[in-house]
Amino acid sequence: MKKKIGILGATGYTGQELIKILSRHKDAEITFVSSRSYAGNPISSVFGDLLNICDLICKNPDEVYKEKLDILFCALPHKESATFISELIDKIPLIIDLSADFRLDNPLDYPKWYSMEHPCPEHLSKKVFGMCELNRSRIKGAKLIANPGCYPTTVILGLAPLFAKGLIDSKITVDSKSSISGAGRTLKIGNLFVEMNEDMYAYSYGHTHRHIAEMEQELNKIGNTNDVTIAFVPHVIPVNRGILSNIYTTLKQDVSIEEVKSLYREFYKNEKFIRIRDDLPKISSVKYSNYCDIGFFKIHSNTLVITSAIDNIVKGASGQAVQNMNIALGINESEGLI
Amino acid sequence: MKKKIGILGATGYTGQELIKILSRHKDAEITFVSSRSYAGNPISSVFGDLLNICDLICKNPDEVYKEKLDILFCALPHKESATFISELIDKIPLIIDLSADFRLDNPLDYPKWYSMEHPCPEHLSKKVFGMCELNRSRIKGAKLIANPGCYPTTVILGLAPLFAKGLIDSKITVDSKSSISGAGRTLKIGNLFVEMNEDMYAYSYGHTHRHIAEMEQELNKIGNTNDVTIAFVPHVIPVNRGILSNIYTTLKQDVSIEEVKSLYREFYKNEKFIRIRDDLPKISSVKYSNYCDIGFFKIHSNTLVITSAIDNIVKGASGQAVQNMNIALGINESEGLI
Amino acid sequence: MKKKIGILGATGYTGQELIKILSRHKDAEITFVSSRSYAGNPISSVFGDLLNICDLICKNPDEVYKEKLDILFCALPHKESATFISELIDKIPLIIDLSADFRLDNPLDYPKWYSMEHPCPEHLSKKVFGMCELNRSRIKGAKLIANPGCYPTTVILGLAPLFAKGLIDSKITVDSKSSISGAGRTLKIGNLFVEMNEDMYAYSYGHTHRHIAEMEQELNKIGNTNDVTIAFVPHVIPVNRGILSNIYTTLKQDVSIEEVKSLYREFYKNEKFIRIRDDLPKISSVKYSNYCDIGFFKIHSNTLVITSAIDNIVKGASGQAVQNMNIALGINESEGLI
Amino acid sequence: MKKKIGILGATGYTGQELIKILSRHKDAEITFVSSRSYAGNPISSVFGDLLNICDLICKNPDEVYKEKLDILFCALPHKESATFISELIDKIPLIIDLSADFRLDNPLDYPKWYSMEHPCPEHLSKKVFGMCELNRSRIKGAKLIANPGCYPTTVILGLAPLFAKGLIDSKITVDSKSSISGAGRTLKIGNLFVEMNEDMYAYSYGHTHRHIAEMEQELNKIGNTNDVTIAFVPHVIPVNRGILSNIYTTLKQDVSIEEVKSLYREFYKNEKFIRIRDDLPKISSVKYSNYCDIGFFKIHSNTLVITSAIDNIVKGASGQAVQNMNIALGINESEGLI
Repeated sequence: MKKKIGILGATGYTGQELIKILSRHKDAEITFVSSRSYAGNPISSVFGDLLNICDLICKNPDEVYKEKLDILFCALPHKESATFISELIDKIPLIIDLSADFRLDNPLDYPKWYSMEHPCPEHLSKKVFGMCELNRSRIKGAKLIANPGCYPTTVILGLAPLFAKGLIDSKITVDSKSSISGAGRTLKIGNLFVEMNEDMYAYSYGHTHRHIAEMEQELNKIGNTNDVTIAFVPHVIPVNRGILSNIYTTLKQDVSIEEVKSLYREFYKNEKFIRIRDDLPKISSVKYSNYCDIGFFKIHSNTLVITSAIDNIVKGASGQAVQNMNIALGINESEGLI
Repeated sequence: MKKKIGILGATGYTGQELIKILSRHKDAEITFVSSRSYAGNPISSVFGDLLNICDLICKNPDEVYKEKLDILFCALPHKESATFISELIDKIPLIIDLSADFRLDNPLDYPKWYSMEHPCPEHLSKKVFGMCELNRSRIKGAKLIANPGCYPTTVILGLAPLFAKGLIDSKITVDSKSSISGAGRTLKIGNLFVEMNEDMYAYSYGHTHRHIAEMEQELNKIGNTNDVTIAFVPHVIPVNRGILSNIYTTLKQDVSIEEVKSLYREFYKNEKFIRIRDDLPKISSVKYSNYCDIGFFKIHSNTLVITSAIDNIVKGASGQAVQNMNIALGINESEGLI
Repeated sequence: MKKKIGILGATGYTGQELIKILSRHKDAEITFVSSRSYAGNPISSVFGDLLNICDLICKNPDEVYKEKLDILFCALPHKESATFISELIDKIPLIIDLSADFRLDNPLDYPKWYSMEHPCPEHLSKKVFGMCELNRSRIKGAKLIANPGCYPTTVILGLAPLFAKGLIDSKITVDSKSSISGAGRTLKIGNLFVEMNEDMYAYSYGHTHRHIAEMEQELNKIGNTNDVTIAFVPHVIPVNRGILSNIYTTLKQDVSIEEVKSLYREFYKNEKFIRIRDDLPKISSVKYSNYCDIGFFKIHSNTLVITSAIDNIVKGASGQAVQNMNIALGINESEGLI
Repeated sequence: MKKKIGILGATGYTGQELIKILSRHKDAEITFVSSRSYAGNPISSVFGDLLNICDLICKNPDEVYKEKLDILFCALPHKESATFISELIDKIPLIIDLSADFRLDNPLDYPKWYSMEHPCPEHLSKKVFGMCELNRSRIKGAKLIANPGCYPTTVILGLAPLFAKGLIDSKITVDSKSSISGAGRTLKIGNLFVEMNEDMYAYSYGHTHRHIAEMEQELNKIGNTNDVTIAFVPHVIPVNRGILSNIYTTLKQDVSIEEVKSLYREFYKNEKFIRIRDDLPKISSVKYSNYCDIGFFKIHSNTLVITSAIDNIVKGASGQAVQNMNIALGINESEGLI
């Protein structure tokens, strides 16, 4: 029997993609979609591409408490997400949160990085950080999955094998470029077509972007260290989909590019959605897919650059969320994903 | 001595372009720029390209009453524009209004097309409709100039010679395509980069778009008729600048394309900013310029199609506004325009 | 057992899309891809997104004669396509030709529209014109399917119900806008990014574009007439995917928009890939899908405008080709299509 | 009297921009434009925007020898450029070469970086490297000016004050992003709209890109060093105009961002076309202008990042070329530039 699925916050870009993926998923039936601003309207009037694909009416998010759901995807803004989940965690067998509200382990990191007291710190330890390729065994059977951020997906997958082997210094510099959909379906001047088209620039550079918190937390676990420091320079580029990250690392010992590739191919040998490339990744190779593509080159003799690319809405959000669902349910990990 | 110039509503796209044009104009000195939302901030913090070009601080629009100005450009939303102008019309020697508030002659057209009572119908007859190439003699020495709309600029310039000669039927169909800047610097979902990029669609089709009012009004004058009817099908396309209009007309008599070209070349023979092309216009040929390019072809034997193209922010707004200023002042009509 | 599938001309955009669709098709196994220019190279080196999805080596097209194939998709340029097919038609059970070589019934139309003598006029009558929704019964069990052109798909599907009912005049005007992928993966100045980005223009306007031939041919059949005349004004717009066609028709009798919608909904009631919309189609609603979206409005009282939109590479080429394959094989018509 | 100006290689993007700039230049009259492929055609048929602006017919480049010119801009491919210039250097009072053929001082660098023997090494020492802001006194009265490359303009202007003061290490990493026009008007698959739209990727990374040669050469001069090493990671992004370079440097001593800004503002205090920003540069702030915008931030405590942005066709090529011309002639340095 198909799982009954609800989506809180269905009218953002991650909501739209979740609906598209789940509508072609054999074991899924979407029965509830919410939107405070569009409550009462068909979701297909919000996203014209969903006509005849999902003809549900958006409900007010508070209606979720009355629903009988097997799985909930929560695509609400941070803080709002935790508030809902703290009341639903005992009622819905599987919750996958696309916000940042359960990604961090330490409640004190929320005031620091998100300028908020966490609404339910007691639940933080119940979550699994849903980086599928790294935490698969813990995701199986999980009840609360914190779906990773988009930039962290490129950086953590891009660095995991090196930290696992202890081959690089803990000081990392990441020069990242993201599509505009990463800024969400949000009304601000900088998101307007005319502003962003034919433009490119850096923002939240240095040690300020919130995603640094989960990058450092997870990489410290993988490397069994406590001093990973990510200097992060994100940019926006005028495309709808994709992130391309150049990760500049300092090798502790001499390792050739061929050795690095072998290490990564071994580390990710069973991973369908990771492609270790001989050339460098391009955004066009991953857009609208669930792949994370990774390539390598060296500069200044001991600086190893890892380049990784994903579709920020698929592998960086909704695709990975469904991959997490598939793992948690013990079904084919690729179901619904193309 | 340079003219002291004020711009009401400087933080939209037409305001930005006015500043760029006037900053390289020999006889102009911008002394006042206003913005309700950015009052107190340098205009160069709103538009980063203006740094060192215009370093004025945005003032509250109500400050305009205290200014001593030779020329005022009013780039406010409709209704708000007329309200300001009705109080300034006797104090400032030349006012050029980029809104629709003075384009229509008949006060009754405002409730019909703009859902508003006109705030100062007594001033309507004082304006000159600023279609430079057609009304030049009246623009010279004018005190209040209603700068034409962007779509009407393509349609009126595109049809004037034919209506002047009485060669076409009064029923016209226009299939127009506009850049997104035509929608203004306005926070709405449809203006977001991710929504509009890789998209195209029609809107306000049929006999509903407000610009129809000025097209029909002016073409009736040119043709000395009263039954011009424009069926108008505007679209948005994912570019920053430009309008391309296909104007479908029915010839009353047999006229060859070569005869049409000769007619237009004669009609516009002294016009620097009109180019009658042998090929069809492209948006790339006019973007960032003050040109209106016009070309022709025939279909179904008696349907003549006129294609005209402009940059909607330059010839369709701020460029034409400065051209109007130059004519009104009796100086070189191209000054500041490239 | 999976069908063995070959693709002649795999390194164009339709070839790339065919590979993506067929790679997720349950009953398909691609065993042969050809490219004269890339022979010897992996197809995934030509299209980086195909890495791990299709790792075949491109062969020289002449190798096709040695292959044992169940189905051949031919995505070669016109004339070249017919030359291959004339030698393969008796050896391969199902051939789907994406070129124009078998779309026209009358051999004399080829010199007229394609400036060539048809290489094998004796085979023209063996084909089925593969407009799935209109010719389904003849496609079932067909051996040679002429896959329709992209523009004709929007125009024929957009007009079929009206011609079937005899409600409109035979003189039609179509103002169409196409993505750049419609021009193919061809090295010409006009296809360069810098030329086409931020641009839009008409081309091959009037009664010159080759696709007019199949539009008129098929609509004459549907309307049981012989005088359908399509004035066609195609444009290019700076997007990767999609066609939006405005079809201007003259109603012979008074019919309301609601009646038109009912007519279309009845006509296409069993069609999964046709969506009759209450609003107008947008390119964003159909891109990367196999849908054809259709909407309506009226102008000048008796002019009915039908707006139709497709993804030119999917429903306008490779998606429709696989839909044809599915129909011919008698399997689920949506298999592989999303 | 206006200077008679010739342009060799007028049908590339730098040629087009030269014509637009020089057409509004008070002291310039273009009298000769060449193109091997378009010889015999009006330049305005190659670039539709030039209609009525420049109506010269393209001549075969070999016709240049018969021309009487005051100034020659050479926008030919490298090697071809030097071949022409070696024969013209004594006949034309001022030659400005936009190719790389005279940028390098050491003839041995040409085999190394450009895989060619230099056709006229004896002339290398006669050129001035035309980085206007750094070499102004030598440009005045020069006869042969080597116009800098686009990437080097961002990097050399971005680093000059720091090297002049000896504040940074000689090992530099540059993560640069360029518009597609940087690849020229060249027919290759990677330059096609559909390939590049919605894509981004790195190319020629490491120590391979030819522009490294002039960066290192010039920075070594400024710093009075011989070991500057630029690791260079250029990318292409889907825009028509602009380069944004992040220059990662290691500070030798503690210097605050405010001190860095003061240093740059002092160093460039008389430079109209350099803007030291408080925020970071954006491509939109410089496109279609001759500005170089520069901003700063720090990471990992001692890594100073300089971000610089230009329009690659204006300040990175044709704009700087005309600025060089203006300096060489001793006229207003901004003439023609906006």
